[in-house]
Amino acid sequence: MSEPVKLIGSLGSPYVHRAEVALRLKGVPYELILEDLDDKSELLFTHNPANEKVPVLLHGDRPAICESLVIVEYIDETFDGAPLLPADSHGRAMARFWARFVDEKCSMSMWGALIWMIAGHAHSEPAETVKDNLTLLETQFPEGKRFFGGDTIGYLDIAIGGITLWLGVFEEVAGVPLLTEEKHPALCRWVRDYMVDETVRRCLPERGHLVATLTSRKELYVGLAKPAVPHTQE
Amino acid sequence: MSEPVKLIGSLGSPYVHRAEVALRLKGVPYELILEDLDDKSELLFTHNPANEKVPVLLHGDRPAICESLVIVEYIDETFDGAPLLPADSHGRAMARFWARFVDEKCSMSMWGALIWMIAGHAHSEPAETVKDNLTLLETQFPEGKRFFGGDTIGYLDIAIGGITLWLGVFEEVAGVPLLTEEKHPALCRWVRDYMVDETVRRCLPERGHLVATLTSRKELYVGLAKPAVPHTQE
Repeated sequence: MSEPVKLIGSLGSPYVHRAEVALRLKGVPYELILEDLDDKSELLFTHNPANEKVPVLLHGDRPAICESLVIVEYIDETFDGAPLLPADSHGRAMARFWARFVDEKCSMSMWGALIWMIAGHAHSEPAETVKDNLTLLETQFPEGKRFFGGDTIGYLDIAIGGITLWLGVFEEVAGVPLLTEEKHPALCRWVRDYMVDETVRRCLPERGHLVATLTSRKELYVGLAKPAVPHTQE
Repeated sequence: MSEPVKLIGSLGSPYVHRAEVALRLKGVPYELILEDLDDKSELLFTHNPANEKVPVLLHGDRPAICESLVIVEYIDETFDGAPLLPADSHGRAMARFWARFVDEKCSMSMWGALIWMIAGHAHSEPAETVKDNLTLLETQFPEGKRFFGGDTIGYLDIAIGGITLWLGVFEEVAGVPLLTEEKHPALCRWVRDYMVDETVRRCLPERGHLVATLTSRKELYVGLAKPAVPHTQE
């Protein structure tokens, strides 16, 4: 496997973080091509016309691979090194399910919680939903292990890496605690273990930069949340 | 593999359809347990507390597997028979990407298009989005083949099976054509080939039932589309 690997990414993205951690854990050298998401390049449009998002993985001259979780599985199946997904099909199914769960059930509600917070509602349904979903995720943590992947970082750890640094920044800017020692002791321990890992640390953006970016865009997110469909009944 | 396989499903669901087609293509005997989604059972809450949706696959006494695409991959990796996913990791990545693309970029916009139609707007952004996304999908169809999977039905065919019967019903009830011979000749041919397949036909619900159900719920969907977040700026 000596074909060049290039990753189109952007600074501070938890989705790009996934691809970088997977590449580094597998020991795959790669070139990171930074994309300005406010002024997207022809390179991005060419390789990801379907949704114009990062990360995008270019491996040799094959068609580009998009979507962070798809990229992580591709890296796992293509390159040597310790496997990221569990060895048995049932374990793989559970990891894939919980990865999607966090994307669909926590991330979306986090933005809802932020919007409510800005509107002056400390306690909102989206915030409670995030907390409840984190509590469900907490029940999945394997007893006596350091990571969801067992003794080492695996696919599910990488997939939910966004609830580490990014969730903390989110809580700070929104002013609402979501992950708590009281309700999520295993997840809180996991966040610490994940973030001090040597490989992970090299792929984490600077916290202050994330706080500043999210703070400066708070009002923009509220604007985006305006309804996109007409209402024919109240 | 003699452990019993049970599938918790519901009549008319394109997601349950995926799991049934995969099980039948692999020749796996299974018991279908029908769920009333308007009055969900303890069985469903027990096995899918994370999102209380069908399908749910029970295989022996292992923890239940949820999410239709996760189930299809589990079936492919666990049971004998012709593989559903491509043999090479790049082909698998592409299939997984386009399966997610259809779920995220076509299905969601379809509901948006329906709501606009009910509100009296024949041409809406969501409808145009669905058409554009189907055009992108059209470009992925392998030349000279009958199915996305090649000569036989594979993972991506199963994943986008919902744009066959269900899309047609949707177009009829919403009164807006989305898939057209003019713009999507390969997809239109694929829809016909997919729907006449012996295995697929056994897993398709009755068209009249789908039309009646969707028609009776039109207004309900509009109600559900009301904004769930406060608006602090206009």
